[in-house]
Amino acid sequence: MDRLIDAINAKQNPSVVGLDPTEALVPPQVVASFADEVRDEVESAEEVPAAQLAVAFYEFNRAIIDAVADIVPAVKPQIAMYEALGTNGVDVYAMTCEYAAERGLYVLGDVKRGDIGSTAAAYAHHLSGVAGPDGASYDPWHEDAVTVNPYLGTDGITPFVEAAAAADKDIFALVRTSNPSSSELQELELASGGRVYEHVADLVERWGEATVGERGYSRVGAVVGATHPEEGKALRARMPHTFFLVPGYGAQGGTAADVAGMFDAEGSGAIVNSSRGIIGAWRKSGRYSESMGADEALDLVAESAREAAIDMRDNLRVAVYR
Amino acid sequence: MDRLIDAINAKQNPSVVGLDPTEALVPPQVVASFADEVRDEVESAEEVPAAQLAVAFYEFNRAIIDAVADIVPAVKPQIAMYEALGTNGVDVYAMTCEYAAERGLYVLGDVKRGDIGSTAAAYAHHLSGVAGPDGASYDPWHEDAVTVNPYLGTDGITPFVEAAAAADKDIFALVRTSNPSSSELQELELASGGRVYEHVADLVERWGEATVGERGYSRVGAVVGATHPEEGKALRARMPHTFFLVPGYGAQGGTAADVAGMFDAEGSGAIVNSSRGIIGAWRKSGRYSESMGADEALDLVAESAREAAIDMRDNLRVAVYR
Repeated sequence: MDRLIDAINAKQNPSVVGLDPTEALVPPQVVASFADEVRDEVESAEEVPAAQLAVAFYEFNRAIIDAVADIVPAVKPQIAMYEALGTNGVDVYAMTCEYAAERGLYVLGDVKRGDIGSTAAAYAHHLSGVAGPDGASYDPWHEDAVTVNPYLGTDGITPFVEAAAAADKDIFALVRTSNPSSSELQELELASGGRVYEHVADLVERWGEATVGERGYSRVGAVVGATHPEEGKALRARMPHTFFLVPGYGAQGGTAADVAGMFDAEGSGAIVNSSRGIIGAWRKSGRYSESMGADEALDLVAESAREAAIDMRDNLRVAVYR
Repeated sequence: MDRLIDAINAKQNPSVVGLDPTEALVPPQVVASFADEVRDEVESAEEVPAAQLAVAFYEFNRAIIDAVADIVPAVKPQIAMYEALGTNGVDVYAMTCEYAAERGLYVLGDVKRGDIGSTAAAYAHHLSGVAGPDGASYDPWHEDAVTVNPYLGTDGITPFVEAAAAADKDIFALVRTSNPSSSELQELELASGGRVYEHVADLVERWGEATVGERGYSRVGAVVGATHPEEGKALRARMPHTFFLVPGYGAQGGTAADVAGMFDAEGSGAIVNSSRGIIGAWRKSGRYSESMGADEALDLVAESAREAAIDMRDNLRVAVYR
């Protein structure tokens, strides 16, 4: 986790921009501008709209990455948004990761993978890459970390931890998610005392044990939603070597004050994600007009994202760097 | 679930072939035979080995699909094996699903996706497809069902259930997985009585409630490992409207007798997966030789898979259709 923590410290900004594009978040003139380009590239006409949207997602992401690269340490593309467009979308997910990495950002792939041991080992190639020519390794996904699901237990996580350690990368396991229904399973009280998510928290702390870095945190982080501020504070104390990825800020209701307790006494220990609040900021800017051209609309997307990212950074600085 | 049950009944075979290729499972001369073809298609030389393996996976899968299409009702490609090769692999995953669907097989995409509500809605496009030209829907993934992870609760599942209902498809939620570490979380005892996986089982039964079909089972199935025969039997009674996908047969140790209790009194209610036991049967055939050409090796893969699939079918028939 040292690389992420150093990047946060360098920019004095514990926030990550979620690159979760949807059709509604991309100005329609941007999508329209790729109609001709796509038509020659797809195999069948029925693919055109999805392929066009995929290209638009990429240009949208590039505009945002360029606009925030000097402000934020990391981006978090959510692969679901890309899978929703089929394999054209998955290509754009990987291209987005690659572009962000080239711009010097830490790339946190929000893939929430998880399976039994032998299959988890296949997923772990997200971090370890695949064999290239002459035995060299080739990294097709360009992620510095991925999120994982803990429901299958240790043997589903170990391959990721080993891959992370070998490649100087990290993982983040779901512990306490930000959604309303998260309580149904995660909050269940155990006969032995404590709740399911607390038991998972203890597993996560243990999974990371052997990989604690120079900054005091292991390569196995935890996802802890901003919508649970009290629980997050308690988890901070319970998991002293576990770095937190905190979703649920902004559009989902979490505030800077809500997340402050998830940081340690030095103002480290967590990174807060905002997706729609940054990448959809153009829609609330009051400066958008349907008559704009595609380039002008993308400029507005970029400007608005930058302003929102600066706002978020400044709010977090006040709340966290006490 | 009616479509799957009808397909099982038509073939009198409650088994599914797991298409989980790995480099070790594909005869090396098959991989080698695609070296030239791939070199012109990739963007950079470093991609060649992974792209070559991806093409080999596709030919391997086609050989197996052709060999078993008249025997088995369904195939279950495991997307992890394809993601392990990057986006070239993901393309081959979708191509494999498409080919299997064209051969009339029910395609169960083992993707184990799961996320918070708004993001789960994006993943649900695996089932609902995406908008094509003129508002028509285009299906880029070609899956009849997908597996999902329940850790995030109801709002992470509802979008999949809705998509399944709208598209006459199904989902299978993890309940009790076949791996050794599954006990760490799934077997925890709850203060209210019962264990975590039993609580999840009750949620799954409820998630399916409104979608029970003519054959008595809902569109929300459950993954219950063959390695837990007693628990599987108890879950069969506990979840009367939930169809089971049973992994862990064969290579993982589960036998036909172990899975018999997961079927209902009519011999319906479950489908049993075997992956390595079928697709890797050529390695145990005693008929493989390194001097074989690529076509000859693929023929052996196909023949051996067909023999193993027939064996499995016959063993299950004896154990299940009592």
